[in-house]
Amino acid sequence: MDIFEKSEEIFENIRKIKPVVHNISNIVTANDCANITLAFGGSPTMAEHPDEVEDITSVCSGFVINMGNIGEPLVEAMLRAGKRSNVLGHPVILDPVGAGAAKKRNDVLFKLLENIKFSVIRGNISEIKFTATGAGAAKGVDADESDKVTDENIDKAVGFAKKLSKKTGAVIAISGEIDIIADENTAYIIKNGCAEMSKVTGTGCMLTSTLGVFCAANPKDILAAAAVAVSAYGYCGELAYKKMLETDGGTGSFRMFLMDYASKMDARLFKGGAKIEVR
Amino acid sequence: MDIFEKSEEIFENIRKIKPVVHNISNIVTANDCANITLAFGGSPTMAEHPDEVEDITSVCSGFVINMGNIGEPLVEAMLRAGKRSNVLGHPVILDPVGAGAAKKRNDVLFKLLENIKFSVIRGNISEIKFTATGAGAAKGVDADESDKVTDENIDKAVGFAKKLSKKTGAVIAISGEIDIIADENTAYIIKNGCAEMSKVTGTGCMLTSTLGVFCAANPKDILAAAAVAVSAYGYCGELAYKKMLETDGGTGSFRMFLMDYASKMDARLFKGGAKIEVR
Amino acid sequence: MDIFEKSEEIFENIRKIKPVVHNISNIVTANDCANITLAFGGSPTMAEHPDEVEDITSVCSGFVINMGNIGEPLVEAMLRAGKRSNVLGHPVILDPVGAGAAKKRNDVLFKLLENIKFSVIRGNISEIKFTATGAGAAKGVDADESDKVTDENIDKAVGFAKKLSKKTGAVIAISGEIDIIADENTAYIIKNGCAEMSKVTGTGCMLTSTLGVFCAANPKDILAAAAVAVSAYGYCGELAYKKMLETDGGTGSFRMFLMDYASKMDARLFKGGAKIEVR
Repeated sequence: MDIFEKSEEIFENIRKIKPVVHNISNIVTANDCANITLAFGGSPTMAEHPDEVEDITSVCSGFVINMGNIGEPLVEAMLRAGKRSNVLGHPVILDPVGAGAAKKRNDVLFKLLENIKFSVIRGNISEIKFTATGAGAAKGVDADESDKVTDENIDKAVGFAKKLSKKTGAVIAISGEIDIIADENTAYIIKNGCAEMSKVTGTGCMLTSTLGVFCAANPKDILAAAAVAVSAYGYCGELAYKKMLETDGGTGSFRMFLMDYASKMDARLFKGGAKIEVR
Repeated sequence: MDIFEKSEEIFENIRKIKPVVHNISNIVTANDCANITLAFGGSPTMAEHPDEVEDITSVCSGFVINMGNIGEPLVEAMLRAGKRSNVLGHPVILDPVGAGAAKKRNDVLFKLLENIKFSVIRGNISEIKFTATGAGAAKGVDADESDKVTDENIDKAVGFAKKLSKKTGAVIAISGEIDIIADENTAYIIKNGCAEMSKVTGTGCMLTSTLGVFCAANPKDILAAAAVAVSAYGYCGELAYKKMLETDGGTGSFRMFLMDYASKMDARLFKGGAKIEVR
Repeated sequence: MDIFEKSEEIFENIRKIKPVVHNISNIVTANDCANITLAFGGSPTMAEHPDEVEDITSVCSGFVINMGNIGEPLVEAMLRAGKRSNVLGHPVILDPVGAGAAKKRNDVLFKLLENIKFSVIRGNISEIKFTATGAGAAKGVDADESDKVTDENIDKAVGFAKKLSKKTGAVIAISGEIDIIADENTAYIIKNGCAEMSKVTGTGCMLTSTLGVFCAANPKDILAAAAVAVSAYGYCGELAYKKMLETDGGTGSFRMFLMDYASKMDARLFKGGAKIEVR
């Protein structure tokens, strides 16, 4: 069954289960993360007190750690909710925001990687490369490694993603003009999305929360759920950009239309715009 | 004088007083709460440091506690500002977000209820039922008590709300498809609003901040102010949903139109759409 | 070269440099601050952990302190990042949110002023007057000093701004119906903007973040960069208000259109709407 055939069940599971997803986010994008979770058919809970998160996450179906804020009480909450989610078998998604940008931030990342088993790790190429190399040797990201993924170097990037997936046990999602979603055996190359998405804050964070919805409702096929989530979200961006131009809008309008299309996305619309290849 | 007649003075008082309302909120919805306060004609201050909140709340006309974030410094700030508001006679509104969902959260709720006298307590039926039963016996919410309010069980729910109002001294506002606003003697049944409101984060938080504006400007008739606030806000939702459909929008557009109509709401518009009955 | 001639280079520098600006903000407006930074052509980083901010700010070109949240870990982060930015010669912008409103808040303000050299200090007339008088004598703002800036008292206000600039070494930006941007020798009087801007939360915070973008890309002429930033932002407000009326919108639409026009603003559009005089 290919990814387009699978997508019907993936969307249907979200509609049936309406998964409650626990997100620990940050002051910049928490509202966006909650709204995109709702738009795609999930229900967010954003509880973040260390003493409540185990109770809260227990009634959810998935957990998203956005590493935007690395304050101590929040990191403790991430650890407790992550471990509890692992015990319960809930998919746990990691967004290593700013990995490599500061020593303190890196220390937090390694602590999370050591203590929690992730179902998906999603970031841009720099964040993912740092997650891969830093986790082993704690050294910085080499400049040449942080090159963008292009049609020319795609095979190398796919190999890297598969290898990191094998090492971590998580599906690896690398975001950029070309997205790569890979487990150790299979990679999906996705060419949805548009440049305007980098002109709005939180588009990465929102994608990670989107992964939370799709994976929480489809825990038995995380790779396919992640690929459909990334493609659907990117396609929402394309549709939003088109409507922005039609209404003579700017980045404010784009942001709103992105949310609009997320709330309208379904298997039928998805199939009309998804650009996914297998490697 | 019925609620429709009263509504003219209620809106006029907001227009004249332009009440400054102190809100302690959370990272998910603080922006929405501030914007809805402005939209309905108030002016928000969101100060949250324990050492500043007494100074700040003293120059306000009302105080809204949104229990979304229960971090220790924030709870201390809630307590200090709440006690100070009580001394000054300012209306204090409580939104017991997630009451019953975690032990830690319940402990915070009981501490607030013990230390602060509230003018209005607003939540969904589960939160309000937990607030009622938990406050006395610290036991969980029974499943049958958390049933939605419908035309069939409305009398029982009204009785419950009146009883809780008598016990707490606060006007009780239960949100749902059917809203109940009650003091110990009188209940208003409100049938404004629309299902789309549950697809956007913070619509409950924003309603609580709306109550802050209406009550701060109308401290002498909290029950009527609360009923008009709930009805007006719900009617904004209906108007926003209509415009969303007309513009082929989704939840992003709905959220914006909700704010638009809040900023346009006045006594004349209100009378054309309010659906309020007395019990 | 007058300010209109300078504006071409100012916008061009932003386009070429795409400055990364470090913002420490608050839970109410952090999302808006990040989005306006992107809209005007910068790139925001909102890191706020005291142990990471020196690393983060070192790879930026400017730093914005929004004093909305004065929690202890945040103030420590402001101080560390501010001192580091001073060492690196990055423009540092201060928004003394709520200066004068609470003793605790004032103490934080004085601590920041003592430890960090600011390139621009921006606030409303009350905040700036408190910053000026409180910094010397720690006394409150006199009522007559907090009068709005009008065509009648503009000369006095300009004199005050120039004097405060001489004392602090910072360009002083006073926001209101009439804006004053001054160093010790020159003042720009700006009459862009519209009343609707006070109906949306964070319009002051967003202006401060806008100053961050313009100054980070134009560190050699902070005064001109600040004047162009304030005028361009105000003009976006005028354009947004016009579109709001055309679409029969309210404050929600206004907020979105403000962001739209920020993302469309350039030297050509600017010259068609800027209202700047020199004093």
